[in-house]
Amino acid sequence: MPAFTIGIDLGGTNLRIAAIDQDGRELQAISTLTEVSRGREYVIADITASTALLREKFARSHKFLGVGIGLPGIIDVESGTLHSAANLPGWQAYNVRDDLAQRLDSAVFLDNDANCAALGEKWLGAGSHVDDLCMITLGTGVGGGFVFNGKPWHGVLGMAGEIGHMTVIPEGRPCLCGNRGCLEQYASATAIRRAALEAADSGESPCLAAARAQDSALTARTVYACAQAGDPAAMRIFAVAGSALGIALGNLINAFNLPLYVIGGGVSRAWNQFAPAMFEQLRTRSIVFRAGEEQKRTHRATEVVPAMLQDRAGLLGAARLPVILRPGRCCSMAV
Amino acid sequence: MPAFTIGIDLGGTNLRIAAIDQDGRELQAISTLTEVSRGREYVIADITASTALLREKFARSHKFLGVGIGLPGIIDVESGTLHSAANLPGWQAYNVRDDLAQRLDSAVFLDNDANCAALGEKWLGAGSHVDDLCMITLGTGVGGGFVFNGKPWHGVLGMAGEIGHMTVIPEGRPCLCGNRGCLEQYASATAIRRAALEAADSGESPCLAAARAQDSALTARTVYACAQAGDPAAMRIFAVAGSALGIALGNLINAFNLPLYVIGGGVSRAWNQFAPAMFEQLRTRSIVFRAGEEQKRTHRATEVVPAMLQDRAGLLGAARLPVILRPGRCCSMAV
Repeated sequence: MPAFTIGIDLGGTNLRIAAIDQDGRELQAISTLTEVSRGREYVIADITASTALLREKFARSHKFLGVGIGLPGIIDVESGTLHSAANLPGWQAYNVRDDLAQRLDSAVFLDNDANCAALGEKWLGAGSHVDDLCMITLGTGVGGGFVFNGKPWHGVLGMAGEIGHMTVIPEGRPCLCGNRGCLEQYASATAIRRAALEAADSGESPCLAAARAQDSALTARTVYACAQAGDPAAMRIFAVAGSALGIALGNLINAFNLPLYVIGGGVSRAWNQFAPAMFEQLRTRSIVFRAGEEQKRTHRATEVVPAMLQDRAGLLGAARLPVILRPGRCCSMAV
Repeated sequence: MPAFTIGIDLGGTNLRIAAIDQDGRELQAISTLTEVSRGREYVIADITASTALLREKFARSHKFLGVGIGLPGIIDVESGTLHSAANLPGWQAYNVRDDLAQRLDSAVFLDNDANCAALGEKWLGAGSHVDDLCMITLGTGVGGGFVFNGKPWHGVLGMAGEIGHMTVIPEGRPCLCGNRGCLEQYASATAIRRAALEAADSGESPCLAAARAQDSALTARTVYACAQAGDPAAMRIFAVAGSALGIALGNLINAFNLPLYVIGGGVSRAWNQFAPAMFEQLRTRSIVFRAGEEQKRTHRATEVVPAMLQDRAGLLGAARLPVILRPGRCCSMAV
């Protein structure tokens, strides 16, 4: 009998629940809005009902291995509690794991959204050939997740992966975190948008100014369209983002020498615009990256690649949690 | 019957071999110069004779668990070969592990000196209470080693721990590695010496100028003595080193959220001079470090501490290798 799990990707905006078989095939998915404003109990009851429905349907033909859930915020994986969850008001200090496990009478495993995305890419995406990887998500902010030996890495406070707040320019732009020159200030969609608004207002970019006249907010996608059309200011914005990413990545590569770094999130679709500046920094700054380039023919190099699964990575990673985290499974086994 | 291993710390200058029991007690040690100039065969024969002597002596009263050796350079742990070894000419591409294993008819385990030092501190030094740590060695250069789940972390090319070449100031001092603004350019003994020579020559530091008149080379120890005597230029040199270390550490802490960072090497003895600037950067730049500070009472924080074992860490870590790396030992067991 084939096996399946149920993955839950709970974001501040979207809620996705899917039954996924052991080979990563989606048996059935339920997508809805996360109605955060209706309160935690409403959302949890919604999740419980959908999960129970999917389980009942597929448990006839498949062995059920458990539920995995990915959430935004800082999670205490040991206790199953959310330490902080800016996008889920009212969820702080709530034991989502134990509550769901009780309501569903099932094993429930949880992790944060960044680690679930990293795990999804490791299982079925850009990282299926490695045991260790780092995933960097360029979205509204810049997030990060690590997989070591096939498993998510949390760190001692559950805060590993704060890659967006690595310092890339010590005297650079102030960040809300209190630091200056954080990666997030250069490579997030927010940073790209801000730089584009400045370029539109200063008159240095006719393309961005015209786009702004249509859509006063501008989006990273619009900036990308201008860059693709050859607008120098828009191209420079992505080059700055790529350079900042290259400095941070070079530091990660020198420190940990992982085989693979996966770049995801909306901004990663602008790969051709920011990747050249990123690789230039990597080649200049990272002796470990260069050693990988030189040994490419005989050894495994350091790969830096765009994500493959885009916004499905988190759901698939969540669905993988019950398989890799179930008790008694030795950490040294291949995932 | 108690157990013992034999640890070998093979440096470019010193060779130390010791029989160490399972509790870390040194049963007997043999220290000598590494006579690199007499060729590899001479050194290996020397190691073999001393190791055989120690084994024979203690195998009567203790169970022998194997030999561990720490070497400078980049090591392919899987094959047992040295990829590169700047301080051991003639050793490149040499399979030190298999050769020693054959000569001694014993299991031999090897790792690089930085990882052995990290492992030594984890076993008997500043890290005995954690499973994961990062050790940064401030010496002639700046090196690094990681222990994850009680074991050394090597990375895909065996190059993990190149912390000395993390970028801390993107447009900073050029480094021989090809980058600019590497940590090593600010926090190594070499960098401190260079800055001190500049301060002595420029006339801004009477203390360093006087010291230089005595000893034209100056040493980091002399710079420290001037700083302790209140010389502003010497104090500033350590503050610069501490700030650079704080930027690099803040990035490591934000990325990996390890519980412990151990600072070793000769320069670490100047802790009171550089640590205030280091912690100032950490508090400003690392949200993960700050979260640890805030949660200190209820959670484990991020610790940054000086090394405890100084130059014995590498020998003790080498002696620990046979115990933690022996086949069949699951990676999830406590070390």
